[in-house]
Amino acid sequence: MNRQAKYIEVCFSPELFQHFFKEDRIVVIADILRATSAICTAFHNGVNKIIPVDDLEEARQYKKDGYVVAAERDGQVLDFADFGNSPFNFTRESVGGKTIVYSTTNGTRAMKMAQKCYKTVIGSFINLNAVCEWLIKNEKDVIVLCAGWKGKFNLEDSVYAGAVVEYLIKSDKFQTICDSALASKDLWSLAREDIVGYIDKAAQRHRLRRLNLDDVIEYAHTPNSSDVIPVIENGYIINLK
Amino acid sequence: MNRQAKYIEVCFSPELFQHFFKEDRIVVIADILRATSAICTAFHNGVNKIIPVDDLEEARQYKKDGYVVAAERDGQVLDFADFGNSPFNFTRESVGGKTIVYSTTNGTRAMKMAQKCYKTVIGSFINLNAVCEWLIKNEKDVIVLCAGWKGKFNLEDSVYAGAVVEYLIKSDKFQTICDSALASKDLWSLAREDIVGYIDKAAQRHRLRRLNLDDVIEYAHTPNSSDVIPVIENGYIINLK
Repeated sequence: MNRQAKYIEVCFSPELFQHFFKEDRIVVIADILRATSAICTAFHNGVNKIIPVDDLEEARQYKKDGYVVAAERDGQVLDFADFGNSPFNFTRESVGGKTIVYSTTNGTRAMKMAQKCYKTVIGSFINLNAVCEWLIKNEKDVIVLCAGWKGKFNLEDSVYAGAVVEYLIKSDKFQTICDSALASKDLWSLAREDIVGYIDKAAQRHRLRRLNLDDVIEYAHTPNSSDVIPVIENGYIINLK
Repeated sequence: MNRQAKYIEVCFSPELFQHFFKEDRIVVIADILRATSAICTAFHNGVNKIIPVDDLEEARQYKKDGYVVAAERDGQVLDFADFGNSPFNFTRESVGGKTIVYSTTNGTRAMKMAQKCYKTVIGSFINLNAVCEWLIKNEKDVIVLCAGWKGKFNLEDSVYAGAVVEYLIKSDKFQTICDSALASKDLWSLAREDIVGYIDKAAQRHRLRRLNLDDVIEYAHTPNSSDVIPVIENGYIINLK
Protein backbone atom coordinates (compact mmCIF):
# COMPACT_ATOMS: atom_id res chain seq x y z
CA MET A 1 0.00 0.00 0.00
CA ASN A 2 1.18 3.47 -0.91
CA ARG A 3 1.78 5.27 2.42
CA GLN A 4 0.88 8.61 0.89
CA ALA A 5 -2.42 7.18 -0.31
CA LYS A 6 -5.59 9.15 0.31
CA TYR A 7 -8.64 7.64 2.00
CA ILE A 8 -11.82 6.63 0.22
CA GLU A 9 -14.96 6.07 2.31
CA VAL A 10 -18.58 5.36 1.41
CA CYS A 11 -21.62 6.73 3.23
CA PHE A 12 -24.76 4.67 2.58
CA SER A 13 -27.30 7.32 3.61
CA PRO A 14 -27.40 11.12 4.01
CA GLU A 15 -28.55 10.44 7.59
CA LEU A 16 -25.14 8.95 8.42
CA PHE A 17 -23.14 11.72 6.75
CA GLN A 18 -22.16 13.39 10.04
CA HIS A 19 -19.90 10.39 10.73
CA PHE A 20 -17.97 10.95 7.49
CA PHE A 21 -17.94 14.72 7.24
CA LYS A 22 -14.58 16.46 7.22
CA GLU A 23 -14.11 19.85 5.60
CA ASP A 24 -11.07 18.85 3.61
CA ARG A 25 -12.73 16.02 1.70
CA ILE A 26 -14.22 15.73 -1.75
CA VAL A 27 -17.76 14.35 -1.79
CA VAL A 28 -19.08 12.34 -4.75
CA ILE A 29 -22.87 12.44 -4.75
CA ALA A 30 -24.53 9.33 -6.18
CA ASP A 31 -28.25 9.14 -6.92
CA ILE A 32 -28.14 6.76 -9.86
CA LEU A 33 -31.92 6.37 -10.29
CA ARG A 34 -32.19 9.07 -11.36
CA ALA A 35 -30.95 12.49 -10.23
CA THR A 36 -27.21 12.28 -10.74
CA SER A 37 -27.57 10.33 -13.99
CA ALA A 38 -29.90 13.07 -15.21
CA ILE A 39 -27.55 15.89 -14.19
CA CYS A 40 -24.62 14.27 -15.99
CA THR A 41 -26.80 13.83 -19.06
CA ALA A 42 -27.81 17.49 -18.94
CA PHE A 43 -24.17 18.61 -18.97
CA HIS A 44 -23.33 16.10 -21.68
CA ASN A 45 -26.08 17.79 -23.69
CA GLY A 46 -24.71 21.26 -23.11
CA VAL A 47 -26.68 22.71 -20.21
CA ASN A 48 -24.89 25.84 -19.04
CA LYS A 49 -25.65 25.71 -15.32
CA ILE A 50 -28.02 23.90 -12.95
CA ILE A 51 -29.56 25.47 -9.85
CA PRO A 52 -30.33 22.73 -7.32
CA VAL A 53 -33.33 23.59 -5.15
CA ASP A 54 -34.88 21.54 -2.36
CA ASP A 55 -37.77 23.83 -1.55
CA LEU A 56 -40.66 23.37 -3.96
CA GLU A 57 -42.00 26.91 -3.56
CA GLU A 58 -38.62 28.21 -4.61
CA ALA A 59 -38.70 25.94 -7.66
CA ARG A 60 -42.20 27.21 -8.50
CA GLN A 61 -40.98 30.81 -8.27
CA TYR A 62 -38.12 30.08 -10.67
CA LYS A 63 -40.68 28.70 -13.12
CA LYS A 64 -42.65 31.96 -12.93
CA ASP A 65 -39.41 33.81 -13.60
CA GLY A 66 -39.05 31.93 -16.88
CA TYR A 67 -36.58 29.17 -16.03
CA VAL A 68 -36.82 25.61 -17.33
CA VAL A 69 -37.64 23.61 -14.16
CA ALA A 70 -37.14 19.89 -13.60
CA ALA A 71 -38.89 18.82 -10.39
CA GLU A 72 -40.39 15.69 -8.95
CA ARG A 73 -41.21 13.95 -5.70
CA ASP A 74 -41.30 10.17 -5.33
CA GLY A 75 -40.82 9.73 -9.06
CA GLN A 76 -43.81 11.94 -10.01
CA VAL A 77 -43.36 15.11 -12.08
CA LEU A 78 -44.76 18.15 -10.26
CA ASP A 79 -47.61 20.03 -11.93
CA PHE A 80 -45.73 23.30 -12.46
CA ALA A 81 -42.52 21.69 -13.73
CA ASP A 82 -41.38 21.29 -17.33
CA PHE A 83 -40.35 17.69 -16.67
CA GLY A 84 -39.20 15.24 -13.98
CA ASN A 85 -35.80 13.67 -13.56
CA SER A 86 -35.61 11.11 -16.31
CA PRO A 87 -32.25 11.62 -18.02
CA PHE A 88 -34.10 11.36 -21.35
CA ASN A 89 -35.76 14.72 -20.70
CA PHE A 90 -32.45 16.53 -20.60
CA THR A 91 -31.94 16.65 -24.35
CA ARG A 92 -29.78 19.13 -26.21
CA GLU A 93 -32.99 20.77 -27.47
CA SER A 94 -34.50 21.26 -24.02
CA VAL A 95 -31.42 22.27 -22.00
CA GLY A 96 -28.53 23.14 -24.36
CA GLY A 97 -26.99 26.52 -23.42
CA LYS A 98 -29.56 27.18 -20.68
CA THR A 99 -29.51 27.63 -16.91
CA ILE A 100 -32.08 25.24 -15.48
CA VAL A 101 -33.56 24.56 -12.04
CA TYR A 102 -33.60 21.07 -10.57
CA SER A 103 -35.38 19.58 -7.55
CA THR A 104 -35.71 15.92 -6.64
CA THR A 105 -36.54 13.65 -3.68
CA ASN A 106 -33.18 12.46 -2.41
CA GLY A 107 -30.51 13.98 -4.63
CA THR A 108 -30.79 17.68 -3.78
CA ARG A 109 -30.85 16.85 -0.06
CA ALA A 110 -27.52 15.04 -0.37
CA MET A 111 -26.06 17.96 -2.36
CA LYS A 112 -26.97 20.48 0.33
CA MET A 113 -25.27 18.38 3.01
CA ALA A 114 -22.07 17.97 1.05
CA GLN A 115 -21.49 21.64 0.33
CA LYS A 116 -19.45 22.30 3.47
CA CYS A 117 -16.75 19.98 2.17
CA TYR A 118 -13.83 20.96 -0.03
CA LYS A 119 -15.59 20.07 -3.30
CA THR A 120 -18.72 18.25 -4.38
CA VAL A 121 -18.90 16.35 -7.65
CA ILE A 122 -21.89 14.66 -9.27
CA GLY A 123 -21.22 10.97 -9.92
CA SER A 124 -23.03 8.42 -12.07
CA PHE A 125 -22.11 5.39 -14.12
CA ILE A 126 -22.32 7.67 -17.16
CA ASN A 127 -19.22 9.62 -16.09
CA LEU A 128 -17.61 6.94 -13.90
CA ASN A 129 -14.05 6.95 -15.18
CA ALA A 130 -13.94 10.71 -15.77
CA VAL A 131 -14.86 11.40 -12.13
CA CYS A 132 -12.40 8.78 -10.85
CA GLU A 133 -9.53 10.28 -12.86
CA TRP A 134 -10.46 13.72 -11.59
CA LEU A 135 -10.47 12.43 -7.98
CA ILE A 136 -7.01 10.94 -8.45
CA LYS A 137 -5.77 14.25 -9.84
CA ASN A 138 -7.16 16.20 -6.87
CA GLU A 139 -5.25 14.22 -4.21
CA LYS A 140 -7.84 14.64 -1.47
CA ASP A 141 -9.63 12.13 0.77
CA VAL A 142 -12.95 11.14 -0.80
CA ILE A 143 -16.44 10.29 0.50
CA VAL A 144 -18.96 8.73 -1.86
CA LEU A 145 -22.32 9.89 -0.49
CA CYS A 146 -25.14 7.61 -1.62
CA ALA A 147 -28.41 9.53 -1.78
CA GLY A 148 -30.30 6.36 -0.89
CA TRP A 149 -34.08 6.25 -0.71
CA LYS A 150 -35.69 8.37 2.02
CA GLY A 151 -32.81 7.75 4.37
CA LYS A 152 -32.44 4.04 3.58
CA PHE A 153 -29.56 2.21 1.92
CA ASN A 154 -30.13 1.44 -1.75
CA LEU A 155 -28.49 -1.03 -4.04
CA GLU A 156 -27.83 0.99 -7.19
CA ASP A 157 -26.03 3.86 -5.45
CA SER A 158 -23.95 1.42 -3.38
CA VAL A 159 -22.91 -0.63 -6.40
CA TYR A 160 -21.83 2.59 -8.12
CA ALA A 161 -19.87 3.55 -4.98
CA GLY A 162 -18.14 0.18 -5.17
CA ALA A 163 -17.10 0.86 -8.77
CA VAL A 164 -15.49 4.14 -7.65
CA VAL A 165 -13.76 2.44 -4.71
CA GLU A 166 -12.34 -0.26 -6.96
CA TYR A 167 -11.07 2.25 -9.51
CA LEU A 168 -9.37 4.40 -6.87
CA ILE A 169 -7.83 1.50 -4.94
CA LYS A 170 -6.47 0.03 -8.18
CA SER A 171 -4.76 3.33 -8.93
CA ASP A 172 -2.68 2.75 -5.77
CA LYS A 173 -3.33 6.39 -4.88
CA PHE A 174 -6.14 5.51 -2.45
CA GLN A 175 -6.67 3.09 0.42
CA THR A 176 -9.54 2.20 2.73
CA ILE A 177 -10.50 0.28 5.82
CA CYS A 178 -14.00 1.74 5.75
CA ASP A 179 -16.43 -1.19 6.05
CA SER A 180 -19.04 0.38 3.78
CA ALA A 181 -16.38 1.02 1.12
CA LEU A 182 -15.26 -2.61 1.33
CA ALA A 183 -18.83 -3.90 1.21
CA SER A 184 -19.76 -1.73 -1.77
CA LYS A 185 -16.63 -2.88 -3.62
CA ASP A 186 -17.74 -6.47 -3.06
CA LEU A 187 -21.26 -5.71 -4.28
CA TRP A 188 -19.77 -4.13 -7.39
CA SER A 189 -17.69 -7.29 -7.96
CA LEU A 190 -20.94 -9.29 -8.01
CA ALA A 191 -22.76 -6.80 -10.23
CA ARG A 192 -20.15 -5.71 -12.77
CA GLU A 193 -20.62 -8.46 -15.37
CA ASP A 194 -24.33 -7.72 -15.68
CA ILE A 195 -25.19 -4.54 -13.81
CA VAL A 196 -28.75 -4.28 -15.11
CA GLY A 197 -29.45 -7.92 -14.25
CA TYR A 198 -28.08 -7.38 -10.76
CA ILE A 199 -30.03 -4.18 -10.16
CA ASP A 200 -33.23 -5.85 -11.32
CA LYS A 201 -33.91 -7.00 -7.75
CA ALA A 202 -33.53 -3.52 -6.26
CA ALA A 203 -36.52 -1.78 -4.69
CA GLN A 204 -36.18 1.38 -6.80
CA ARG A 205 -36.33 -0.79 -9.93
CA HIS A 206 -39.74 -2.03 -8.77
CA ARG A 207 -40.89 1.50 -7.96
CA LEU A 208 -39.90 2.81 -11.39
CA ARG A 209 -41.53 -0.14 -13.14
CA ARG A 210 -44.80 0.54 -11.34
CA LEU A 211 -44.64 4.16 -12.52
CA ASN A 212 -43.60 3.14 -16.06
CA LEU A 213 -40.35 5.03 -15.57
CA ASP A 214 -37.99 2.09 -15.86
CA ASP A 215 -36.90 2.86 -19.43
CA VAL A 216 -33.80 4.61 -18.03
CA ILE A 217 -32.41 1.63 -16.14
CA GLU A 218 -30.08 0.38 -18.83
CA TYR A 219 -28.84 3.83 -19.80
CA ALA A 220 -28.21 4.82 -16.16
CA HIS A 221 -26.14 1.70 -15.53
CA THR A 222 -23.97 1.85 -18.65
CA PRO A 223 -20.52 3.16 -17.71
CA ASN A 224 -18.64 5.92 -19.45
CA SER A 225 -20.91 7.40 -22.09
CA SER A 226 -19.66 10.85 -21.06
CA ASP A 227 -16.65 12.63 -19.56
CA VAL A 228 -18.47 15.49 -17.81
CA ILE A 229 -17.32 16.62 -14.34
CA PRO A 230 -20.30 18.45 -12.79
CA VAL A 231 -19.26 20.17 -9.56
CA ILE A 232 -21.11 22.46 -7.17
CA GLU A 233 -19.68 25.96 -6.95
CA ASN A 234 -21.35 28.80 -5.05
CA GLY A 235 -24.65 26.90 -5.00
CA TYR A 236 -24.71 26.15 -8.73
CA ILE A 237 -23.74 23.00 -10.58
CA ILE A 238 -21.31 23.68 -13.40
CA ASN A 239 -19.25 21.42 -15.66
CA LEU A 240 -15.46 21.47 -15.30
CA LYS A 241 -14.95 19.71 -18.60
CA MET B 1 -43.01 -16.89 -3.67
CA ASN B 2 -45.35 -17.77 -0.87
CA ARG B 3 -48.00 -15.04 -0.83
CA GLN B 4 -48.48 -15.39 2.91
CA ALA B 5 -44.75 -14.92 3.45
CA LYS B 6 -43.60 -12.49 6.12
CA TYR B 7 -41.14 -9.67 5.40
CA ILE B 8 -37.50 -9.67 6.41
CA GLU B 9 -35.61 -6.36 6.36
CA VAL B 10 -32.13 -5.35 7.47
CA CYS B 11 -31.22 -2.04 9.12
CA PHE B 12 -27.49 -1.25 8.86
CA SER B 13 -27.32 1.28 11.69
CA PRO B 14 -29.38 2.19 14.79
CA GLU B 15 -29.52 5.72 13.34
CA LEU B 16 -31.67 4.46 10.46
CA PHE B 17 -33.98 2.37 12.64
CA GLN B 18 -36.86 4.87 12.47
CA HIS B 19 -37.31 3.88 8.80
CA PHE B 20 -37.83 0.23 9.72
CA PHE B 21 -39.71 0.50 13.00
CA LYS B 22 -43.17 -1.03 13.20
CA GLU B 23 -44.66 -2.17 16.48
CA ASP B 24 -45.71 -5.56 15.20
CA ARG B 25 -42.23 -6.70 14.15
CA ILE B 26 -39.60 -8.89 15.77
CA VAL B 27 -36.18 -7.27 15.97
CA VAL B 28 -33.00 -9.35 15.85
CA ILE B 29 -30.13 -7.38 17.42
CA ALA B 30 -26.71 -8.14 15.95
CA ASP B 31 -23.48 -6.86 17.49
CA ILE B 32 -21.19 -9.72 16.54
CA LEU B 33 -17.93 -8.18 17.82
CA ARG B 34 -18.72 -8.61 20.59
CA ALA B 35 -21.88 -7.82 22.61
CA THR B 36 -24.44 -10.22 21.17
CA SER B 37 -21.88 -13.04 20.87
CA ALA B 38 -21.05 -12.50 24.54
CA ILE B 39 -24.71 -12.47 25.63
CA CYS B 40 -25.42 -15.71 23.78
CA THR B 41 -22.34 -17.26 25.40
CA ALA B 42 -23.50 -16.13 28.84
CA PHE B 43 -26.85 -17.88 28.39
CA HIS B 44 -25.17 -20.94 26.94
CA ASN B 45 -23.16 -21.00 30.18
CA GLY B 46 -26.23 -20.76 32.36
CA VAL B 47 -26.58 -17.08 33.28
CA ASN B 48 -30.00 -16.59 34.80
CA LYS B 49 -30.82 -13.08 33.61
CA ILE B 50 -28.98 -10.09 32.10
CA ILE B 51 -29.81 -6.48 32.88
CA PRO B 52 -28.77 -4.31 29.90
CA VAL B 53 -27.77 -0.82 31.01
CA ASP B 54 -26.62 2.07 28.82
CA ASP B 55 -25.91 4.57 31.57
CA LEU B 56 -22.52 3.98 33.17
CA GLU B 57 -23.46 5.49 36.54
CA GLU B 58 -26.32 3.03 36.72
CA ALA B 59 -23.89 0.18 35.98
CA ARG B 60 -21.55 1.46 38.69
CA GLN B 61 -24.44 1.51 41.20
CA TYR B 62 -25.32 -2.09 40.36
CA LYS B 63 -21.72 -3.02 41.08
CA LYS B 64 -21.97 -1.39 44.50
CA ASP B 65 -25.15 -3.41 45.09
CA GLY B 66 -23.18 -6.62 44.59
CA TYR B 67 -23.96 -7.55 40.99
CA VAL B 68 -21.45 -9.00 38.53
CA VAL B 69 -21.00 -6.18 35.99
CA ALA B 70 -19.66 -6.46 32.46
CA ALA B 71 -19.02 -2.99 31.06
CA GLU B 72 -16.82 -1.44 28.45
CA ARG B 73 -16.54 1.49 26.09
CA ASP B 74 -14.68 1.35 22.79
CA GLY B 75 -13.36 -2.10 23.59
CA GLN B 76 -11.87 -1.05 26.95
CA VAL B 77 -13.04 -2.60 30.24
CA LEU B 78 -14.24 0.07 32.68
CA ASP B 79 -12.41 0.38 35.98
CA PHE B 80 -15.32 -0.59 38.22
CA ALA B 81 -16.46 -3.54 36.09
CA ASP B 82 -15.72 -7.24 36.67
CA PHE B 83 -14.89 -7.68 32.99
CA GLY B 84 -15.54 -6.35 29.49
CA ASN B 85 -17.50 -7.98 26.69
CA SER B 86 -15.25 -10.72 25.46
CA PRO B 87 -17.42 -13.85 25.22
CA PHE B 88 -14.59 -15.73 26.95
CA ASN B 89 -15.30 -13.86 30.20
CA PHE B 90 -18.81 -15.26 30.43
CA THR B 91 -17.83 -18.68 31.71
CA ARG B 92 -20.05 -21.02 33.68
CA GLU B 93 -17.94 -20.22 36.74
CA SER B 94 -18.37 -16.45 36.47
CA VAL B 95 -22.03 -16.19 35.39
CA GLY B 96 -23.80 -19.55 35.89
CA GLY B 97 -27.07 -19.14 37.82
CA LYS B 98 -26.52 -15.40 38.33
CA THR B 99 -28.23 -12.16 37.32
CA ILE B 100 -25.58 -9.94 35.74
CA VAL B 101 -25.42 -6.37 34.46
CA TYR B 102 -24.16 -5.58 30.98
CA SER B 103 -23.20 -2.31 29.29
CA THR B 104 -21.42 -1.86 25.96
CA THR B 105 -20.76 0.76 23.29
CA ASN B 106 -23.20 -0.08 20.53
CA GLY B 107 -25.17 -3.12 21.61
CA THR B 108 -27.21 -1.78 24.52
CA ARG B 109 -28.17 1.30 22.49
CA ALA B 110 -29.65 -0.94 19.79
CA MET B 111 -31.50 -2.99 22.41
CA LYS B 112 -33.15 0.09 23.90
CA MET B 113 -34.38 1.20 20.48
CA ALA B 114 -35.87 -2.16 19.63
CA GLN B 115 -37.92 -2.59 22.79
CA LYS B 116 -41.03 -0.89 21.39
CA CYS B 117 -41.39 -3.67 18.87
CA TYR B 118 -43.28 -6.93 19.39
CA LYS B 119 -40.23 -8.89 20.52
CA THR B 120 -36.46 -8.43 20.59
CA VAL B 121 -34.09 -11.36 20.25
CA ILE B 122 -30.29 -11.40 20.58
CA GLY B 123 -28.65 -12.79 17.45
CA SER B 124 -25.12 -14.01 16.77
CA PHE B 125 -23.45 -16.63 14.64
CA ILE B 126 -23.31 -18.79 17.78
CA ASN B 127 -27.10 -19.23 17.82
CA LEU B 128 -27.80 -18.57 14.12
CA ASN B 129 -30.04 -21.51 13.24
CA ALA B 130 -31.82 -21.55 16.59
CA VAL B 131 -32.89 -17.90 16.18
CA CYS B 132 -33.91 -18.45 12.55
CA GLU B 133 -36.10 -21.43 13.44
CA TRP B 134 -37.65 -19.41 16.26
CA LEU B 135 -38.38 -16.53 13.83
CA ILE B 136 -40.06 -18.92 11.42
CA LYS B 137 -42.22 -20.30 14.24
CA ASN B 138 -43.27 -16.80 15.33
CA GLU B 139 -44.73 -15.82 11.94
CA LYS B 140 -44.03 -12.09 12.27
CA ASP B 141 -42.23 -9.61 10.02
CA VAL B 142 -38.58 -9.36 11.03
CA ILE B 143 -35.97 -6.57 11.16
CA VAL B 144 -32.33 -7.45 11.69
CA LEU B 145 -30.88 -4.40 13.46
CA CYS B 146 -27.11 -4.20 13.03
CA ALA B 147 -25.54 -2.39 15.98
CA GLY B 148 -22.79 -1.10 13.69
CA TRP B 149 -19.92 1.00 15.00
CA LYS B 150 -20.85 4.42 16.39
CA GLY B 151 -23.63 4.83 13.89
CA LYS B 152 -21.69 3.49 10.91
CA PHE B 153 -22.30 0.34 8.87
CA ASN B 154 -20.06 -2.57 9.79
CA LEU B 155 -19.15 -5.70 7.93
CA GLU B 156 -19.49 -8.43 10.56
CA ASP B 157 -23.02 -7.48 11.64
CA SER B 158 -24.14 -7.14 8.02
CA VAL B 159 -22.71 -10.50 6.99
CA TYR B 160 -24.54 -12.09 9.93
CA ALA B 161 -27.74 -10.31 8.83
CA GLY B 162 -27.24 -11.83 5.39
CA ALA B 163 -27.02 -15.32 6.89
CA VAL B 164 -30.37 -14.75 8.62
CA VAL B 165 -31.94 -13.39 5.42
CA GLU B 166 -30.77 -16.40 3.44
CA TYR B 167 -32.06 -18.89 6.02
CA LEU B 168 -35.49 -17.24 6.20
CA ILE B 169 -35.91 -16.79 2.44
CA LYS B 170 -34.95 -20.43 1.86
CA SER B 171 -37.69 -21.50 4.28
CA ASP B 172 -40.20 -20.00 1.83
CA LYS B 173 -41.92 -18.41 4.83
CA PHE B 174 -40.23 -15.04 4.27
CA GLN B 175 -39.70 -12.65 1.38
CA THR B 176 -37.94 -9.34 0.87
CA ILE B 177 -37.42 -6.47 -1.54
CA CYS B 178 -35.44 -4.53 1.06
CA ASP B 179 -32.18 -3.43 -0.59
CA SER B 180 -30.12 -3.78 2.59
CA ALA B 181 -31.46 -7.31 3.08
CA LEU B 182 -30.52 -8.21 -0.51
CA ALA B 183 -27.07 -6.64 -0.17
CA SER B 184 -26.33 -8.39 3.13
CA LYS B 185 -27.43 -11.72 1.64
CA ASP B 186 -24.95 -11.15 -1.18
CA LEU B 187 -22.17 -10.25 1.26
CA TRP B 188 -22.93 -13.45 3.18
CA SER B 189 -22.68 -15.42 -0.07
CA LEU B 190 -19.13 -14.06 -0.51
CA ALA B 191 -18.16 -14.66 3.13
CA ARG B 192 -19.76 -18.01 3.98
CA GLU B 193 -16.97 -20.31 2.80
CA ASP B 194 -14.40 -18.56 4.98
CA ILE B 195 -16.09 -16.11 7.30
CA VAL B 196 -13.00 -15.32 9.36
CA GLY B 197 -10.92 -14.74 6.23
CA TYR B 198 -13.61 -12.42 4.86
CA ILE B 199 -14.01 -10.46 8.11
CA ASP B 200 -10.25 -10.02 8.35
CA LYS B 201 -10.51 -6.81 6.31
CA ALA B 202 -13.17 -5.27 8.55
CA ALA B 203 -12.39 -2.17 10.59
CA GLN B 204 -13.47 -3.71 13.91
CA ARG B 205 -11.03 -6.57 13.28
CA HIS B 206 -8.23 -3.99 13.13
CA ARG B 207 -9.47 -2.23 16.26
CA LEU B 208 -9.57 -5.47 18.26
CA ARG B 209 -6.14 -6.49 17.03
CA ARG B 210 -4.68 -3.18 18.21
CA LEU B 211 -6.22 -3.80 21.64
CA ASN B 212 -5.11 -7.46 21.68
CA LEU B 213 -8.76 -8.47 21.84
CA ASP B 214 -8.94 -10.35 18.56
CA ASP B 215 -8.82 -13.81 20.12
CA VAL B 216 -12.63 -13.97 19.91
CA ILE B 217 -12.87 -13.52 16.16
CA GLU B 218 -12.97 -17.16 15.19
CA TYR B 219 -15.32 -18.17 18.01
CA ALA B 220 -17.71 -15.27 17.26
CA HIS B 221 -17.94 -16.24 13.58
CA THR B 222 -18.46 -19.98 14.02
CA PRO B 223 -22.15 -20.78 13.47
CA ASN B 224 -24.34 -22.86 15.72
CA SER B 225 -22.35 -23.72 18.81
CA SER B 226 -25.49 -23.02 20.86
CA ASP B 227 -29.28 -23.08 20.66
CA VAL B 228 -30.05 -20.28 23.13
CA ILE B 229 -32.84 -17.78 22.35
CA PRO B 230 -32.12 -14.67 24.47
CA VAL B 231 -35.05 -12.26 24.33
CA ILE B 232 -35.75 -8.98 26.08
CA GLU B 233 -38.74 -9.07 28.44
CA ASN B 234 -39.63 -6.22 30.78
CA GLY B 235 -36.18 -4.71 30.42
CA TYR B 236 -34.29 -7.94 31.18
CA ILE B 237 -32.68 -10.42 28.84
CA ILE B 238 -33.82 -13.97 29.51
CA ASN B 239 -33.36 -17.24 27.66
CA LEU B 240 -36.41 -18.88 26.10
CA LYS B 241 -34.60 -22.16 25.62
